[in-house]
Amino acid sequence: MNRTNPIGIFDSGIGGLTVVKRLTSFLPNENVIYFGDTARVPYGSKSNETVIEYSIQDAQFLSKKNIKLLIVACNTASSVAIDVLKEKFNLPVIGMIEPGAKLALEKTKNKRIGVIGTYATIGNSAYAKQLRTIDPATQVFEKACPLFVPLAEEGWTHHDATKLIAEEYLEEFKRHEIDTLILGCTHYPILADIIHEVMGDDVALIDSGTAASLVVENHLDGRGLKNSSNMLGTHHFFVSDVPKKFKEIAERFLGREIEHVERVDPDELV
Amino acid sequence: MNRTNPIGIFDSGIGGLTVVKRLTSFLPNENVIYFGDTARVPYGSKSNETVIEYSIQDAQFLSKKNIKLLIVACNTASSVAIDVLKEKFNLPVIGMIEPGAKLALEKTKNKRIGVIGTYATIGNSAYAKQLRTIDPATQVFEKACPLFVPLAEEGWTHHDATKLIAEEYLEEFKRHEIDTLILGCTHYPILADIIHEVMGDDVALIDSGTAASLVVENHLDGRGLKNSSNMLGTHHFFVSDVPKKFKEIAERFLGREIEHVERVDPDELV
Repeated sequence: MNRTNPIGIFDSGIGGLTVVKRLTSFLPNENVIYFGDTARVPYGSKSNETVIEYSIQDAQFLSKKNIKLLIVACNTASSVAIDVLKEKFNLPVIGMIEPGAKLALEKTKNKRIGVIGTYATIGNSAYAKQLRTIDPATQVFEKACPLFVPLAEEGWTHHDATKLIAEEYLEEFKRHEIDTLILGCTHYPILADIIHEVMGDDVALIDSGTAASLVVENHLDGRGLKNSSNMLGTHHFFVSDVPKKFKEIAERFLGREIEHVERVDPDELV
Repeated sequence: MNRTNPIGIFDSGIGGLTVVKRLTSFLPNENVIYFGDTARVPYGSKSNETVIEYSIQDAQFLSKKNIKLLIVACNTASSVAIDVLKEKFNLPVIGMIEPGAKLALEKTKNKRIGVIGTYATIGNSAYAKQLRTIDPATQVFEKACPLFVPLAEEGWTHHDATKLIAEEYLEEFKRHEIDTLILGCTHYPILADIIHEVMGDDVALIDSGTAASLVVENHLDGRGLKNSSNMLGTHHFFVSDVPKKFKEIAERFLGREIEHVERVDPDELV
């Protein structure tokens, strides 16, 4: 494995671009290949069976591009398919769940942790299982917040309706007196301001994209696989569809301009 | 063609079940085969190219089941793929756009018509083109309301946040003094109460599913193809995925219990 080989990242769509944003702030010299399965997005409302099938196809696409490491930048795919991916591909595979859970356990003082995510992530209790495996004394409270994804995509990041919806979704976490909240969906960092406003200063928000980026950095460092180039890395973006408003939303998520997006026919993935 | 043959209906997911609900209230004796492409839902944010490809696959699946007529119960697919489907399949094909536009023109007095729908439907100006083709004097005002779909699926049909969002989306239609509003997405009838509340009694809401059902009835009547059985028709539901909360949402949309849902592997459609 060569240290200049790219890091592969896939997501069900564009949410994973918030992970690319974090990753490149930690590891600006790494080459990155991103695949967003925008033709079949979202995964969060689909069955486990379907999510596993799609995740294998996404990983297969990237594994053909000589990647040195695979990031599953989709909480749903991480929660459902990570074990299958580790088994099937001869690659280090880093998902969102374990890094996010570990970072949350470092931050919490009262061991009362909240998790928000899609129906799939929450339905599988992915974070709760991971948190309790590491520290069985942890109390975990979970809530699916499916409206957060379309609100983030609409860009209604500071809208009264978003505030109302956040208050309704998050109200129970206040009653449970959590001190740490895991943003268990890569779209949610876009709404971090309003979530912080609702939860208050005393609740730490955990962005799993940040947590995963730290794990990737450690992994590459430990194995001498960090790209030592002084040049900024190249970034290639592949999607299975170029949907309406793609550029606008993608750039909001990535935090900068996006260029050279290549479309992959979804039939080629099957 | 036999009059006992079923009517085929497809949609990108479950929204089309509101059309099945209307259809069966008009034509209770018809046999119905429904296909919902829940593995690849939604179509409304995808490119025209992808929507056409998927629509052909959906129609192919139904055409193998001896249907006597095909209803495209998805506004996005109707707006983008209807001509291709009519050309490719030797079947009467009825979409949402033309019936909805015609009914709106029957209702309007001031010829100022509003249309709400997904980004794809609105981006293609499907209703606007149809309305102006029939009556060039019509003034059409269009607005994409992407948050309405997840709100309908969440069942937040009378929530304060839904009201706020509806007020923001619909505000411009009041300024434009429309007297008729086309619900250009099969999810939207679920939110009809709140839309009516925001728009007031003087604005007629057009449900394209109702409009299309009337067209289907006329079509079958005119050709002697109406099922003359005294028995209630049988309904078969096929989906490409059985997503989380499927039954709960499907039953809200269909207005009754749903049984015998069969999963079709999405790879078989390709």
